[in-house]
Amino acid sequence: MAVQTVASTTDSTVDLGPAAALSCRECGHRVPLGPVFACEECFGPLEIAYDFSAYDTEQLRKRIEAGPANIWRYAPLLPVPADVADKPNLNPGWTKLVKADNLARELGVTGGLYVKDDSGNPTHSFKDRVVAQALEAARAFGFTTLSCSSTGNLAGAVGAAAARAGFRSCVFIPHDLEQGKVVMAAIYGGELVGIEGNYDDVNRFCSELIGDPAGEGWGFVNVNLRPYYAEGSKTLAYEICEQLGWRLPDQLVVPIASGSQLTKIDKGLQELIKLGLVEDKPYKIFGAQAEGCSPVSTAFKAGHDVVRPQKPNTIAKSLAIGNPADGPYVLDIARRTGGFVEDVTDEQVVDAIGLLARTEGVFAETAGGVTVGVTKKLIDNGVLDPAKTTVVLNTGDGLKTLDAVAGTGLTATIRPNLDSFREAGLA
Amino acid sequence: MAVQTVASTTDSTVDLGPAAALSCRECGHRVPLGPVFACEECFGPLEIAYDFSAYDTEQLRKRIEAGPANIWRYAPLLPVPADVADKPNLNPGWTKLVKADNLARELGVTGGLYVKDDSGNPTHSFKDRVVAQALEAARAFGFTTLSCSSTGNLAGAVGAAAARAGFRSCVFIPHDLEQGKVVMAAIYGGELVGIEGNYDDVNRFCSELIGDPAGEGWGFVNVNLRPYYAEGSKTLAYEICEQLGWRLPDQLVVPIASGSQLTKIDKGLQELIKLGLVEDKPYKIFGAQAEGCSPVSTAFKAGHDVVRPQKPNTIAKSLAIGNPADGPYVLDIARRTGGFVEDVTDEQVVDAIGLLARTEGVFAETAGGVTVGVTKKLIDNGVLDPAKTTVVLNTGDGLKTLDAVAGTGLTATIRPNLDSFREAGLA
Repeated sequence: MAVQTVASTTDSTVDLGPAAALSCRECGHRVPLGPVFACEECFGPLEIAYDFSAYDTEQLRKRIEAGPANIWRYAPLLPVPADVADKPNLNPGWTKLVKADNLARELGVTGGLYVKDDSGNPTHSFKDRVVAQALEAARAFGFTTLSCSSTGNLAGAVGAAAARAGFRSCVFIPHDLEQGKVVMAAIYGGELVGIEGNYDDVNRFCSELIGDPAGEGWGFVNVNLRPYYAEGSKTLAYEICEQLGWRLPDQLVVPIASGSQLTKIDKGLQELIKLGLVEDKPYKIFGAQAEGCSPVSTAFKAGHDVVRPQKPNTIAKSLAIGNPADGPYVLDIARRTGGFVEDVTDEQVVDAIGLLARTEGVFAETAGGVTVGVTKKLIDNGVLDPAKTTVVLNTGDGLKTLDAVAGTGLTATIRPNLDSFREAGLA
Repeated sequence: MAVQTVASTTDSTVDLGPAAALSCRECGHRVPLGPVFACEECFGPLEIAYDFSAYDTEQLRKRIEAGPANIWRYAPLLPVPADVADKPNLNPGWTKLVKADNLARELGVTGGLYVKDDSGNPTHSFKDRVVAQALEAARAFGFTTLSCSSTGNLAGAVGAAAARAGFRSCVFIPHDLEQGKVVMAAIYGGELVGIEGNYDDVNRFCSELIGDPAGEGWGFVNVNLRPYYAEGSKTLAYEICEQLGWRLPDQLVVPIASGSQLTKIDKGLQELIKLGLVEDKPYKIFGAQAEGCSPVSTAFKAGHDVVRPQKPNTIAKSLAIGNPADGPYVLDIARRTGGFVEDVTDEQVVDAIGLLARTEGVFAETAGGVTVGVTKKLIDNGVLDPAKTTVVLNTGDGLKTLDAVAGTGLTATIRPNLDSFREAGLA
């Protein structure tokens, strides 16, 4: 946690609002704000250190509440300039916190169940939140091209944000992706480059490109801009608490891909506590994975501190990172808060997508099936307390993973007359 | 216009807020609120007559501004009970009004160009707005099943709203729809009935079912609940004006399917003027159709008062109504306001989808391609004034009409190394 740190002589003069410096999560070494992501001392991951020292709690609360209905209401807590809302970007966030009373009844939750539904973002996933931060960093560092490696949601989010902001974009994907995902990534008019190889090959190539003169002036949102990018997930924590009436939930169920989102949600909650915007009380964070890519839940259950990589094989493709960079931090947070990390089978993912849709009218992508499925499993196993206020994240949109529920279809086929209607037992 | 009408002895006691009665748009005959849609005197269409007489302008404005970030901020102007925001529904609306400066530059608009982007609604189309009204009417009249005939957006909106509200749903579609649309309509768990026949057959069957005991207790959102349902489109007008700072735009470009949306947007603007919430000044409404289904633009250009039905043949399937019920009213409004009704080819629709995506990062469904394409054509032809403030509607989501832009794809395919990257001319 780097709240209320004081500016030092190493701090940057780049205007990214309250962001004061980059600080190593392992050794604490501090460097000026810049497009770097690994510590020069110990190779640990860098994250943003803020200077929040000037804030008065009640003034800050009022400023937030008077802000726009998007993530920029939290600009005072993000690595972005104060006038960010005036710059062209997709203005994601302030998505619905759905009070899920029907789902609560089905699951036996009595303490209040909510679904934070990030399918309402501009490109229909939480990735718009993180890309919006990376875009501001790219502006600050003078980059003119936005880039990333992706297999889906991120490609669309980067393409759309770059289009609106007037950046060139060049996105790298495996060349044999499904046509639907290719169309979604290509429609925004940037360069969309298929790499002959798998996602690992794409990633390796991007790392090579960053070190080459050809990659100069390029902001890779999830590589050299990663410290900024990752902070976008804090806004999920801020919104959940504000939408609950500036109250911490007792329990949160968060999907794990790289684990970055879960760690930043924890960071956001801790900031709200330190800033006095919410009461300081315990909360538990639960991580959710698909069984076919469950390196973190496997490590958690085995009591390990390190995460052993897995080869992913699951329909929850947006969570299919076999070697999650933030895995060890996730284990720390789940253990520190008294949470748990659990996984569900692909069949349970599909069932959970259907359960959420038919109880709340929310059509989640497979990642949302993972969190709802894990919530059910944790309740059934007595790990999650049904008497406590619980928030479950849906980070994407079912329209993007239609294949996963392709078995869903017509309940009847009839001829266009009442006799046929009655014969089908529909009357 | 039925603003500030006074309650009469025929008025209903059903609590739908300021809705006082149903009134015939042709002969003015007034009947109590109920699940009826055609005038018993002249068979004209019924619409809601309101009693807004108690409202003080500034109090109303404050009440709206303090309301939730969804359509229920306008509950005082809608046929819904005052406590509607507390009932389970999808809470649609308050979607982004995107300041489209990049698109404005491409089109030569200097007076301010905005895209009202309704893809941000819960099921990603404006249909959530109208279904939310029909749901409240269904509750008021004691219906327990929500139904409709649909070929796409409406099926999903009804299924989702019914699921969340705890209604049974039974939606009728042609049996041979694309698999993607079937999945989207089926995921919410209601009955999804395929009819062996085309959309006309589906509609005819629904009319038969309404008159049969088997259809008792069923609210067909776009048939017997149509007067309530249609009012949801007024919220587009309210939001646009409030988001412009309680200001009328000079020009609006609105898609035409049945024509209902355009007529209700005009009704909403007129209400805001009469209530004093915006300045009374002229505005022009432009209607947009696809050339392959352009009965209204054909009639407009020919100077006719009646609309001759067409057999639709266009990729803009959500607008493909060959015999639009509100066609004559649309002609009236376009002529009264000094607007125009124009159409574009399918090729222009696809081009316009790409134009909007690459300038503003908004991925519109084909209906959005129609409005953006028509806007471009109207400017090129000198009909729409580029020096005036203009709002273009995007009523749906590109993810639902991927086939229309299936030609969009990779800009290059390379091997995972820098040499291949350079050879492709990407450096």
